[in-house]
Amino acid sequence: MTKTEAEPRRATLAVIGQEASVSMSTVSKVLNGRSGVSAETRAIVEGLLDRYGYTPRGQTTAWDPFLELVMSEIDTPWSLEIIRGAQSVARDHGLSLILTQSGDRYAPEPDWIDGVLRRRPFGVVLVLSSLSDQLQRQLRTRGIPFVLVDPSGEQSSDIPAVGAANFDGGLLATRHLIELGHTRIGVVGGPEHVMSARARIAGFRTAMEAAGLPIHNELMLPGDYHTGSGIEAAEKLLSLPQPPTAIFALNDLEAFGVYTAARRLGVSIPQQLSVVGFDDIQGAEWAGPPLTTVRQPLTKMAEEAARMLIRIRNQESDLSLRVDLATTLVVRDSTRRVD
Amino acid sequence: MTKTEAEPRRATLAVIGQEASVSMSTVSKVLNGRSGVSAETRAIVEGLLDRYGYTPRGQTTAWDPFLELVMSEIDTPWSLEIIRGAQSVARDHGLSLILTQSGDRYAPEPDWIDGVLRRRPFGVVLVLSSLSDQLQRQLRTRGIPFVLVDPSGEQSSDIPAVGAANFDGGLLATRHLIELGHTRIGVVGGPEHVMSARARIAGFRTAMEAAGLPIHNELMLPGDYHTGSGIEAAEKLLSLPQPPTAIFALNDLEAFGVYTAARRLGVSIPQQLSVVGFDDIQGAEWAGPPLTTVRQPLTKMAEEAARMLIRIRNQESDLSLRVDLATTLVVRDSTRRVD
Repeated sequence: MTKTEAEPRRATLAVIGQEASVSMSTVSKVLNGRSGVSAETRAIVEGLLDRYGYTPRGQTTAWDPFLELVMSEIDTPWSLEIIRGAQSVARDHGLSLILTQSGDRYAPEPDWIDGVLRRRPFGVVLVLSSLSDQLQRQLRTRGIPFVLVDPSGEQSSDIPAVGAANFDGGLLATRHLIELGHTRIGVVGGPEHVMSARARIAGFRTAMEAAGLPIHNELMLPGDYHTGSGIEAAEKLLSLPQPPTAIFALNDLEAFGVYTAARRLGVSIPQQLSVVGFDDIQGAEWAGPPLTTVRQPLTKMAEEAARMLIRIRNQESDLSLRVDLATTLVVRDSTRRVD
Repeated sequence: MTKTEAEPRRATLAVIGQEASVSMSTVSKVLNGRSGVSAETRAIVEGLLDRYGYTPRGQTTAWDPFLELVMSEIDTPWSLEIIRGAQSVARDHGLSLILTQSGDRYAPEPDWIDGVLRRRPFGVVLVLSSLSDQLQRQLRTRGIPFVLVDPSGEQSSDIPAVGAANFDGGLLATRHLIELGHTRIGVVGGPEHVMSARARIAGFRTAMEAAGLPIHNELMLPGDYHTGSGIEAAEKLLSLPQPPTAIFALNDLEAFGVYTAARRLGVSIPQQLSVVGFDDIQGAEWAGPPLTTVRQPLTKMAEEAARMLIRIRNQESDLSLRVDLATTLVVRDSTRRVD
């Protein structure tokens, strides 16, 4: 066996530069997100880095004391709990928290990756529905560890991620309503293609089927995890000739929308309508009436994601790549035994 | 006139090093928050930097594209609105947002300043009650611009700050209750020494006096801007032989505490008790009943603070050092004409 057969060329910057017919300094610029490289060259170098399975070694994995948190939106109490969790673990480890709003459920803005490469964070926690293959490759080739929180798209199982037991939560919420004697239960759905919503719905269906109850399609309305969709769906449900006696809203913001619709239509909660939400965001306990909901441990999920980054940096071998934290039912005053 | 009289020694690093009997590199280490300097030497150099009124010139004012937001706590919907405002202006100007929780109402942790000096942010927005003289000096001598949001302590007027019209807000809330016929109005107070609370109380007193109504001391109870203090105060107020017909809670979290106490004691809002809050945090509109409150434009306040930093960096001369944004009354369902 010749030497070349036994040892494939090592993916050094020199090798990649040679293949791409550019200087090592150009390859280094691409790796570090610096300017002065054409889009075309950048794409060629990215492709080679990927094909060679380039991973940085030794001192190139140096990082600055930043933990970067990327969220698609910063506008609900939901976001606050995530921020709080990430901040607390970052602080305990002497890291500053950088907060980025991506504005997109699937990826940060295109120039974000260059910023990250320049900032060289300790690691990145992404609260996104899913992560594009390209972004995964770019972070991997630069040796920047990343963890997804509450990934809601289909994700390959080798991406480290922290989620919640959404299926169990849907089951808990529905069982609670069934135990109170409800049989006509309306549902305000979640955004299409979002896995957390599908899992909650699957939990609902499973509980209904286990209890031998029929699922009425006219009681299953779409929603998008925002209050407006809860109002719209509840107005339709409560105007049916035979309205439901209970509504399972797939998150608390939708449940608040159901409250608004019920108030407008003069339907009193819980006397005439029971409502269950999902998340247990701040505000759920002060709602009128205090909301029965499924608690998602959002702060703990973010803490767990940040700790996972630390374990990845420490190259601990017993890494669970995917952790789902338990959900629990919090019974307050918005649900009542059916008359 | 001799030359020495006309020109006092310029505050260069060399001059300061000479006075302190240390090398220029030591002075530079102190300025840049680097290690390897004893606490004693550090204190001497800090003192000289301050006495000479040292300000960095030319390239020493280089900064990294970070906007740093420092908050005493990240645990209420209040914080979220501030974060959102700072993030949106930072993003529009190509800056990353660094979020620091100080855990203290008056100052970040002692090692924070060294971190900031190493990070060299574009500027710092501090959501703190007040800022120590030492911290002000340290930021000034390093040429790092800073702006306070909602400063609630006594502040010298040369610190750039963005606040809300708290006095006006207290006036608006109280006038609203008086117009509804309330004369016995209870108050849940705010943290001692916090200027925003004092201004809201002053607005309350002014409105009462203008209407010729007496202020009963037994109806003015202490509070700390958290829900627990609202519960405690309202339980006392509602158990008085002659309870108030309305309560002005100095913020929304306290108002939610009043809701909880009223529910426990079987007092219905607004039929038997009117409640007004302050802030209009997310959740106020979904509360049971939706809360009448004074809206503080928190997101806009944080945006204004971030924009102020940008104007300071651009050395714009028409700087207003202190901006108070208007507060408005939002009437919902928790207040009603007295029977």
